Amino acid sequence: MNAAALIQWVIPIAGVAAVLFAAYLTRDVLRRDTGTDAMRDVASTIHEGAVAFIKRQYSTIAVLALVGAVIIGVVIYFVETPDVADVPELAGGPIALMTAVAFLVGAACSMASGIIGMYISVRSNVRTAAAARRSLVEAVQVAMRGGAVSGFLVVALSLLGVWGIFIAYEALVADVTVQEAPFLIVGFGFGASFVALFAQLGGGIYTKAADVGSDLVGKVEAGIPEDDPRNAGVIADLVGDNVGDCAGRGADLFESTAAENIGAMILGVGAFLIAQAAGWPNPEAWIFFPLVVRGFGLLATIVALFFVRGREDEDPMNMLNRGYWATTILSIAGLGITTFVMMQTGTDVVGAMGLPSWLWMFGAGVVGLATSVAFVYITQYYTAGAWRPVKEIAEASKTGPATNIISGTAVGFETTFVTAITIGIALIASHWLGSQAGLLTADGRDVGGIFGTAVATMGMLMTTAYILAMDTFGPITDNAGGIAEFSHAEAGAREITDRLDAVGNTTKALTKGYAIASASLAAFLLFSAYIDKVNLILSNQIEAGTRAADTLLETVNLADVSVFVAALIGAMLAYFFSSLAIRAVGKTAQSIIVEVRRQFREMPGIMDYTQRPDYARVVDITTRAALKEMVLPGAVAVATPIVVGLLLGHEAVAGMLMVGTISGVLLATVLNNGGGAWDNAKKYIESGRLSDVTGVLGKGTPAHAAAVVGDTVGDPFKDTAGPSLHVLVKLLATITLVLAPLFIR
Amino acid sequence: MNAAALIQWVIPIAGVAAVLFAAYLTRDVLRRDTGTDAMRDVASTIHEGAVAFIKRQYSTIAVLALVGAVIIGVVIYFVETPDVADVPELAGGPIALMTAVAFLVGAACSMASGIIGMYISVRSNVRTAAAARRSLVEAVQVAMRGGAVSGFLVVALSLLGVWGIFIAYEALVADVTVQEAPFLIVGFGFGASFVALFAQLGGGIYTKAADVGSDLVGKVEAGIPEDDPRNAGVIADLVGDNVGDCAGRGADLFESTAAENIGAMILGVGAFLIAQAAGWPNPEAWIFFPLVVRGFGLLATIVALFFVRGREDEDPMNMLNRGYWATTILSIAGLGITTFVMMQTGTDVVGAMGLPSWLWMFGAGVVGLATSVAFVYITQYYTAGAWRPVKEIAEASKTGPATNIISGTAVGFETTFVTAITIGIALIASHWLGSQAGLLTADGRDVGGIFGTAVATMGMLMTTAYILAMDTFGPITDNAGGIAEFSHAEAGAREITDRLDAVGNTTKALTKGYAIASASLAAFLLFSAYIDKVNLILSNQIEAGTRAADTLLETVNLADVSVFVAALIGAMLAYFFSSLAIRAVGKTAQSIIVEVRRQFREMPGIMDYTQRPDYARVVDITTRAALKEMVLPGAVAVATPIVVGLLLGHEAVAGMLMVGTISGVLLATVLNNGGGAWDNAKKYIESGRLSDVTGVLGKGTPAHAAAVVGDTVGDPFKDTAGPSLHVLVKLLATITLVLAPLFIR
Repeated sequence: MNAAALIQWVIPIAGVAAVLFAAYLTRDVLRRDTGTDAMRDVASTIHEGAVAFIKRQYSTIAVLALVGAVIIGVVIYFVETPDVADVPELAGGPIALMTAVAFLVGAACSMASGIIGMYISVRSNVRTAAAARRSLVEAVQVAMRGGAVSGFLVVALSLLGVWGIFIAYEALVADVTVQEAPFLIVGFGFGASFVALFAQLGGGIYTKAADVGSDLVGKVEAGIPEDDPRNAGVIADLVGDNVGDCAGRGADLFESTAAENIGAMILGVGAFLIAQAAGWPNPEAWIFFPLVVRGFGLLATIVALFFVRGREDEDPMNMLNRGYWATTILSIAGLGITTFVMMQTGTDVVGAMGLPSWLWMFGAGVVGLATSVAFVYITQYYTAGAWRPVKEIAEASKTGPATNIISGTAVGFETTFVTAITIGIALIASHWLGSQAGLLTADGRDVGGIFGTAVATMGMLMTTAYILAMDTFGPITDNAGGIAEFSHAEAGAREITDRLDAVGNTTKALTKGYAIASASLAAFLLFSAYIDKVNLILSNQIEAGTRAADTLLETVNLADVSVFVAALIGAMLAYFFSSLAIRAVGKTAQSIIVEVRRQFREMPGIMDYTQRPDYARVVDITTRAALKEMVLPGAVAVATPIVVGLLLGHEAVAGMLMVGTISGVLLATVLNNGGGAWDNAKKYIESGRLSDVTGVLGKGTPAHAAAVVGDTVGDPFKDTAGPSLHVLVKLLATITLVLAPLFIR
Repeated sequence: MNAAALIQWVIPIAGVAAVLFAAYLTRDVLRRDTGTDAMRDVASTIHEGAVAFIKRQYSTIAVLALVGAVIIGVVIYFVETPDVADVPELAGGPIALMTAVAFLVGAACSMASGIIGMYISVRSNVRTAAAARRSLVEAVQVAMRGGAVSGFLVVALSLLGVWGIFIAYEALVADVTVQEAPFLIVGFGFGASFVALFAQLGGGIYTKAADVGSDLVGKVEAGIPEDDPRNAGVIADLVGDNVGDCAGRGADLFESTAAENIGAMILGVGAFLIAQAAGWPNPEAWIFFPLVVRGFGLLATIVALFFVRGREDEDPMNMLNRGYWATTILSIAGLGITTFVMMQTGTDVVGAMGLPSWLWMFGAGVVGLATSVAFVYITQYYTAGAWRPVKEIAEASKTGPATNIISGTAVGFETTFVTAITIGIALIASHWLGSQAGLLTADGRDVGGIFGTAVATMGMLMTTAYILAMDTFGPITDNAGGIAEFSHAEAGAREITDRLDAVGNTTKALTKGYAIASASLAAFLLFSAYIDKVNLILSNQIEAGTRAADTLLETVNLADVSVFVAALIGAMLAYFFSSLAIRAVGKTAQSIIVEVRRQFREMPGIMDYTQRPDYARVVDITTRAALKEMVLPGAVAVATPIVVGLLLGHEAVAGMLMVGTISGVLLATVLNNGGGAWDNAKKYIESGRLSDVTGVLGKGTPAHAAAVVGDTVGDPFKDTAGPSLHVLVKLLATITLVLAPLFIR
């Protein structure tokens, strides 16, 4: 067995190691001190609420996924006739079954990682609060380890899932060759997208409805402070943080890693064919490459977690950054090893300038890692309090809520500039580097450029597990702060949880920037995969004589009226979907308001603390309302590409996919960063850094009230619509990949 | 002389008739009663401010246009070498001179129509106020006739300008044939776009800065009512209405009619060649067709203006609608005559289903007119108080400014749905109808489809003069209301001006909907013209042997990485440009606030009415600040397509143009309709139509205060950024058309 075959063992080894490490972290977190009785009491209420939500949400999603699997199976059974099937020998029943099974496995893995991750997250919060009574560093470690359980499970289950189903289909099903198998597992990615759509939508609607609803009914109507235990909506709010940021973002990134692995493997088929024809040592290595890189990313993250340490008086963000840099540097090393081992071209140097192919591809991967670092810092610039944008919004708050909103909108719009330029540079650079690697087909077509963008995406996604750990750090510390407040913990502990909470806000914003950047880089990869899949079908048809020669999908021609109209609809979809998601928050918040009002009215003891509000009922009502409200935007997201494809055909769908991605990525950037900047402008004012001739303008001033308006507006933008757009963009890609045969005309 | 040649005389006749009719309307308006001394006093202050603004703004723009013309001349001189020139015989000097002259003529015509239109607009306001003391119908007629001066001049000067320069170049310059001339006059469109960009940006920044600034410093800081004469910013605010809506929108639609006429003539060349080869009776008619249609539109509008009449107790909107329907019906007749006379194909019927070509094209034109009607009603649904969207925002105001903003954003986003679907249907329908007309080139390529979309655009733009008259009706009645208020006119007069003002708000919103719809329909036409122009150059190169055969621009391939990145940048440009425009409003408003504060401080007599504020100084300061602030967004708009073209080449620019158009159209829709809905939600509450259990929630309630926040946020959206995006979209098209040779690689 040669090195390139040997290195493939990294896939299962890293996957299993990550799962075991997650189990170790779970044990480590669970055996820790759970603090005072009061703390345990609040925590168990949150825990109950979270479990109730998870049960209801995931059983709804499971039902939807089952229905989806059956529909997909039936559609593919009838559509994938021998002349349009990826693998003609499997047309009809077998391919329908394989796609449906892959869909269900993808959905199940995504749900499992979401459920377990959130289960640990809502048990880490109280332990973080308890640790904060003793030590900042320990609190950071508990929260980060609790978060890492999510991170590892998401990436490992996605990796093992894709690998497992690939191996199963390739090894167990006769007729399936290694270059056909990637096309057969796209159902896995679609299953992951499908779950992510509803997990993110439902979670996003829930979390912000609970936040806005309990604020409006408590702070505005009843005049009691935020997070006051008398407000029956408060526990729903704390549950919501976990639901949106942990489960939602986890599903989002599960989908990214799954869909982009599969897309990269499909592109790898092109390289495989070249390698095979040229007699290079390890043709299959080009297909397995994405999974091996991901495995190294997991191993890097395991090591990096031990770098999360520091001094008691240190900025906690520094500790997290230390781990991030460790992950990045180790990932570069892993990337170098993988490209060197797997991308050998025999004795001939085929790359440009006399440099070997693997070196060019390594360069493309480094571009991806650099893009990830760039986005981490860009997001900080736009959403953290130390720089111009947030200060500008805080200044604008002096003249009231209207100027605060106008200024925040201008900042949100502005962030698209650096986002688009960075993505543009990354795409062009990685494409150029890839095109130098010498991957030329027999008819002289270069497939290296697009493969270069895929390698860059893979490079970028190496750090996913770490990023996701930082993200889940957010709700854990947010909850820890809530628990400390609720249980009247010592001032020292509360000071520590407040500091961690502020860091958590930053890490949550970073993750969104990272998710958006990876979605954009991956977009190019995913629609190249779509084009490859369409052409596979078209060549089958041409071979079967049911189609004229020379009708392959060579270009996606925007100057064609159908493509242009589809592109217009794709761009519109981002807005329309966001509109529905934002409106769903408003409707769900209404149902909370009604219920909390009812409790105030019918349980007069709540106000003088003699009666305990019925927290569980609010959680339950919010859950049901959020799940009901997620159906319409979810249905629109799924139906639009199908309708457009049926009406306008396979080339138009590609146009919709590409322009829809551009539109979705930019709008998500606006919503995420605008929302983050509003949030931190409020915190900037609360921390006493805004002043005018009369002195400091802190809490209780009109400027602060104006900033609160901005913060409230930003909430559904950054936590519901923005993250749901990430999922929408990837769903467009996976749905068109799976249903491509339906659109062929 | 046959009928098709004869009908071309409609162009100069309609153009001159419209100018004469505008002169008649001017005389009619100016000879009317100017009301009381107090009215004349305010009016003359507004008039002075407007003149001061116009002088300064248009002399700035004139300088910019001169500099622009020189740069364009120089660039074209060096770039349009014989092998890339449209007309190789004219390469270098002649073509540079012709483009620069066309640019200057376009700029001059646009400026002339803007200046004269606004001059009449600020003289119609006081006469409308005076008429309102006697009769509603007379007031409507004065305002509409004053507005129509702008409408006629804009369309007539654009028509005469394009026709004149076309005839001049074709007839006077040897070497220029009728099929080459359309390419040589694109400079006219660019000149119009260039002026429109700065007129709309400068005007939009000015009007909203004056509005927001004088509100903040007067209402919020000094606690005096809106439109109070003690506020030195109030006159600037009244001037601003004219500057933004009259001069700005006039320049916007001047550009539309000019650029789209030229684009349609370029597409007409394709039809001309087919007609010539097939021996159809009037090949040139296909090129002149767009101008003749426009001429009929002008004639229809002249007649329709006499339909603006009604009873004293009638809704004024009905009177305006009567005229609009008259214009539309007469336009359909004109369209029928024009297509029948000009699109004859000899004795053979070449259209599908045995129907003649002209009938298919007539159908495409009707689609355009229908689209125009659809947008008029769609905009009303989304922005007028009687329907769900505005009511929803008003309801959301009950829970404060944050929910008002969230709800308005959701509505704004939602409006993209029906916009995109309507445009999509119009494009596909007119393309299909056109493709049935049988316009096939020698190599079997169908050019009828794209020509069909051009005919639809021409149909839609037939009503431009009337729409623009309704638009300018807005600032005239708004000003009339201000004058009535200021001069303490009789209650009856004020009641009439208030009713007209409300109607004016609707007509202003309609015009934006119309402008956006025409920009989107035209987009397809304009980038088809770009592709035609690029291919003309490429064929010249291929013929000259400096380029390989088979390298024509057949497709704009989104799957190419350069095209995709350019598309991403184009989509981003809409956001970034809007961000700069919105921020410019904030900065300009600051300079007003500082000046009004100074006047309050240094002129203590203002507060007790013993001292008259220095209105002129505020106008002057606002003007200078607005003109300074328009430079950056203007420069970004002009530079981005050039930089992208230079770096990424001619195909990528086409991608940027198309996706930039999609993004700009959708974002403008969001900003215009969201802003309009916020505005009318406030008016809905003010009219006492919102209530809860405690009774009516009118002026002075927290719900009203929340709605005021939304209205203020919407102001720069709908009056600065949104309309400027219309111009940006068309500027992208004209700039790439003119500079195409620069991007060839």
